[in-house]
Amino acid sequence: MNLEAIYHRTGQAWCYMYDKDTVHIRVRTKRGDMDAVDVFAGDKYDFERTLRQIEMRILATDALFDYWQAEVTTPHRRLQYYFRFTSGAITVYMTETGFADEPPSGVTGVFEYPYLHESDCLQPPEWAKHAVFYQIFPERFANGDPSNDPEGVLPWGGKPEPFNFFGGDLQGVIDHLDHLSELGVNAIYLTPIFEATTNHKYDTSDYMKIDPHFGDTETLRRLVNLAHERGIRVLLDAVFNHSGGRFAPFLDVVEKGEASPYKDWFHVLEFPLRVENGRPTYRAFAFEPHMPKLNTQHPQVKAYLLDVARYWIEEVGIDGWRLDVANEIDHQFWRDFRQVVKAVKPDAYILGEIWHDSMRWLQGDQFDAVMNYPFTNAVLDFFAHRKIDAVQFSHRISTLIATYPQQVHEVAFNLLDSHDTPRLLTLMHGDKRRMKLAALFQLTFLGTPCIYYGDEIGLDGGADPDCRKCMEWEPDRQDRDLFDFYRTAISLRHRHAALRTGSFRFLQADSDSGLIAYERADEQSRFLVALNASDQAATLQLPADDMAGAELLYSSSAADGTPASGTAGTIALEPYAYRIWKKG
Amino acid sequence: MNLEAIYHRTGQAWCYMYDKDTVHIRVRTKRGDMDAVDVFAGDKYDFERTLRQIEMRILATDALFDYWQAEVTTPHRRLQYYFRFTSGAITVYMTETGFADEPPSGVTGVFEYPYLHESDCLQPPEWAKHAVFYQIFPERFANGDPSNDPEGVLPWGGKPEPFNFFGGDLQGVIDHLDHLSELGVNAIYLTPIFEATTNHKYDTSDYMKIDPHFGDTETLRRLVNLAHERGIRVLLDAVFNHSGGRFAPFLDVVEKGEASPYKDWFHVLEFPLRVENGRPTYRAFAFEPHMPKLNTQHPQVKAYLLDVARYWIEEVGIDGWRLDVANEIDHQFWRDFRQVVKAVKPDAYILGEIWHDSMRWLQGDQFDAVMNYPFTNAVLDFFAHRKIDAVQFSHRISTLIATYPQQVHEVAFNLLDSHDTPRLLTLMHGDKRRMKLAALFQLTFLGTPCIYYGDEIGLDGGADPDCRKCMEWEPDRQDRDLFDFYRTAISLRHRHAALRTGSFRFLQADSDSGLIAYERADEQSRFLVALNASDQAATLQLPADDMAGAELLYSSSAADGTPASGTAGTIALEPYAYRIWKKG
Repeated sequence: MNLEAIYHRTGQAWCYMYDKDTVHIRVRTKRGDMDAVDVFAGDKYDFERTLRQIEMRILATDALFDYWQAEVTTPHRRLQYYFRFTSGAITVYMTETGFADEPPSGVTGVFEYPYLHESDCLQPPEWAKHAVFYQIFPERFANGDPSNDPEGVLPWGGKPEPFNFFGGDLQGVIDHLDHLSELGVNAIYLTPIFEATTNHKYDTSDYMKIDPHFGDTETLRRLVNLAHERGIRVLLDAVFNHSGGRFAPFLDVVEKGEASPYKDWFHVLEFPLRVENGRPTYRAFAFEPHMPKLNTQHPQVKAYLLDVARYWIEEVGIDGWRLDVANEIDHQFWRDFRQVVKAVKPDAYILGEIWHDSMRWLQGDQFDAVMNYPFTNAVLDFFAHRKIDAVQFSHRISTLIATYPQQVHEVAFNLLDSHDTPRLLTLMHGDKRRMKLAALFQLTFLGTPCIYYGDEIGLDGGADPDCRKCMEWEPDRQDRDLFDFYRTAISLRHRHAALRTGSFRFLQADSDSGLIAYERADEQSRFLVALNASDQAATLQLPADDMAGAELLYSSSAADGTPASGTAGTIALEPYAYRIWKKG
Repeated sequence: MNLEAIYHRTGQAWCYMYDKDTVHIRVRTKRGDMDAVDVFAGDKYDFERTLRQIEMRILATDALFDYWQAEVTTPHRRLQYYFRFTSGAITVYMTETGFADEPPSGVTGVFEYPYLHESDCLQPPEWAKHAVFYQIFPERFANGDPSNDPEGVLPWGGKPEPFNFFGGDLQGVIDHLDHLSELGVNAIYLTPIFEATTNHKYDTSDYMKIDPHFGDTETLRRLVNLAHERGIRVLLDAVFNHSGGRFAPFLDVVEKGEASPYKDWFHVLEFPLRVENGRPTYRAFAFEPHMPKLNTQHPQVKAYLLDVARYWIEEVGIDGWRLDVANEIDHQFWRDFRQVVKAVKPDAYILGEIWHDSMRWLQGDQFDAVMNYPFTNAVLDFFAHRKIDAVQFSHRISTLIATYPQQVHEVAFNLLDSHDTPRLLTLMHGDKRRMKLAALFQLTFLGTPCIYYGDEIGLDGGADPDCRKCMEWEPDRQDRDLFDFYRTAISLRHRHAALRTGSFRFLQADSDSGLIAYERADEQSRFLVALNASDQAATLQLPADDMAGAELLYSSSAADGTPASGTAGTIALEPYAYRIWKKG
């Protein structure tokens, strides 16, 4: 038994409250090392009499570890527990104090989840579990109102440069809501729309004003209302880490230096504010002088930004906030932010931009979700960059599953590209077949998928600014095959709850062929998805009874039908094939 | 290389902010597996140019693992990092994505501590690092005012029973402040003093009123002022998990049932409130009907209790709160509690009662410290129960060191007994020699030691209620040798900063002899402590130059002098010996 491999600590994803009555307990062991793992749990104040043995099952397996999970309910909302590991004839017990050959004689030193309080439980809004998002970069989506175009606007469809403008605006989004409805998305995330000098608007001048080139408060209100009528939610981008260089308080500090009443609104290293050797004498986002970092620990700054957060929910009814550079702002700010936002809209979706491990923001007191870049990276490393094979991919996804509590995965914002990355089609070197596989994985996985505007009609583009091309509205120049693919996949997801909130389990991963197969299942039904990510034919091998009565819902090959009931579960898959079967 | 043994995850004690410029990074590896571990750290937005290699050192070693630590400063307050492990000719790199043979080519997937904000840093009050606490159970400490004795009060010194009274009060504490000053303690923790029906007062009837048998607000104010004049801080006990059965809102719910405006102040399972088969029909502390659990998630309850917390700080100037049953109250309550308390007294000490792993309360947003029962259990298992040998003890302490951030250890409330446990002398089967060793370990270890009233003069007692005996004030019946021992040890701790805040390192631990030796060191000086916990002679073996010039500060043997400078560092220690040497 490899004791060194075992890890458990109450908290994080190892022992957390899933809902008001349920705690999930997990432990990791060396892969293949254990025949069984059991957790023994009871009430702190009546341990002997309430002690129950719960068999753990393997939630996920990666290259090194098995991750075991048990769901434990508790009538008195208190939980103490210890583990038993069994490997052949060897049995070892684990408490907080360490390993022992015997179970603990009392409750001293056992693990404890002391009390289940709903106020401590991460409970993201229910709707986010069922949402398919669509990200819009407003300057490039559609120009619905030429009267508000910026000076020097270029003809629609030109080459995007860091500082050019094409006239996209909120009216343009309103004009194309039919497109979104047809695609089937039910949530929009708009990159920033408040007054700013750039085309991306991540340099806010006025948080209380819609950028005049995009419209005004009334336009936004109309957009939100019309979207809501279609069942589409709207998320705005909160750029609270830094302001823009034209933000009035910043201009005041630039002008008055230490005499400015706003001097503590920023992180000034040296007055007067200036740029020396390319570096500002104040803290800034990524050393960018035009993006001075806001001092979110300052009570006035915090009050101002929390007002902003509240205002746009109350004023126009948005459904949540995407938080830019979220992890460079203090946790205390986000705790207060959550209180303010949830007070005015309990089901608001609070989505942080974090590219790395985000556990510290996902414990119930801060965010509902983060942009799930570890998911993005795994999918791209496999389907696009081919840096990892199917087995390694299944390991990366399995590690990710074990990394977070279940409810985190249920609303994780799963994107494959964005205004910050090259576009999916370009990452696939233009190969639509591979793009479809990646998208299908995204749309049949746990979480809240997001499609970057234009991907669905074949827009391509390299790194910023090339990934910010104007949306193609000319039907002849749209890839309608791709659009139909997205529409069908999204519709399947909407139609079948198990594809959204069912459990996820890998069934097969072939390092040779590039084939992966997995199951999504809930109490009503089971789905089987097979994706062949290689240019070679592959063979799906499943127990015959696993395929009995399976109905083929979606396939890359028109010729392929439902496998005959009762035949052996060996199914040939053409290169870049995808299949979705439904069982029961 | 045992990759499975390696563990790191940003957050908790693995990567945390120590102060505004410094992050501590730790990683665990299989014991003895690595020749070297390095961390490579740089600024997120200028990674290549700022990348630095920092050699990690072993912070602690237990039975299974080496725990490595590096202290990393960062000029731009941002940190990204990865690890390199070296074992013989093998080199492995680790990022958030896993292990690799090569260092990462960019910042994708590396570990990240995104920004250092002071508002997120756990910064306990400075004074707590230098405090020696004294815990007083007021009903049993001294009767200073017989006029406020409860009815049926028994003569001082009688046998403690669950429901009897001896007349101790706040005036009694005031009367004996000289005793505390002589002993050398500089902080008092009083178990509850608000109006309640029991002798222990953990069943509050009125949070705004001092129990009339203990005195009144004026008595408490006088006690606090007089203590402050002596440099002694005062901590009160906040019993917020549950009220007493005579708390007015609870009585109202008992009387009016669902019609009571206070019905949601508690967790009622079924009206009317009653006890069935020994279990109340409402949630209660440990199923105790007389201690109904308060609904701390209810806005009115929270507002009321936070008022209480603020009131006693503002009204009489107490220096902090000890929080009863702290981990059965929601985190959100404690976050608000911290805000309220620190707003009125920034250096208040917030001390939670938690008997288990407390990491989730010690991340900067809730408590400053917890009652360090894992420390207590380790010390007792070794010195008292002899369930573990010296090597196992050193492992238990080492595991504990690795479990928490450094600042947690600096103010951890290290107790060896309390009103909830048998007394130290009794746990030692009356053997004062062993008691002294345990106390000396406590008083020369990291953290904030606390002495339970009476231990210092030889009071004994088994489990509750026997551990709540009346204090012995008759000089002839006090153990003055023990008192002198405590006084000297406390005074050494006060005199030498390294014994309080210096680093801690085991130098020797003999499973045969029961000898442990360790070093406490800061930049000014080094101390060497040797304790022989067995009834056999033991031999301390240290490099000769380690003992050169060492000055013997404290010894269990009057005959023993300073070892001659330059002799070999082999020193015989009699059974139950203790020695403290100072170097430089």
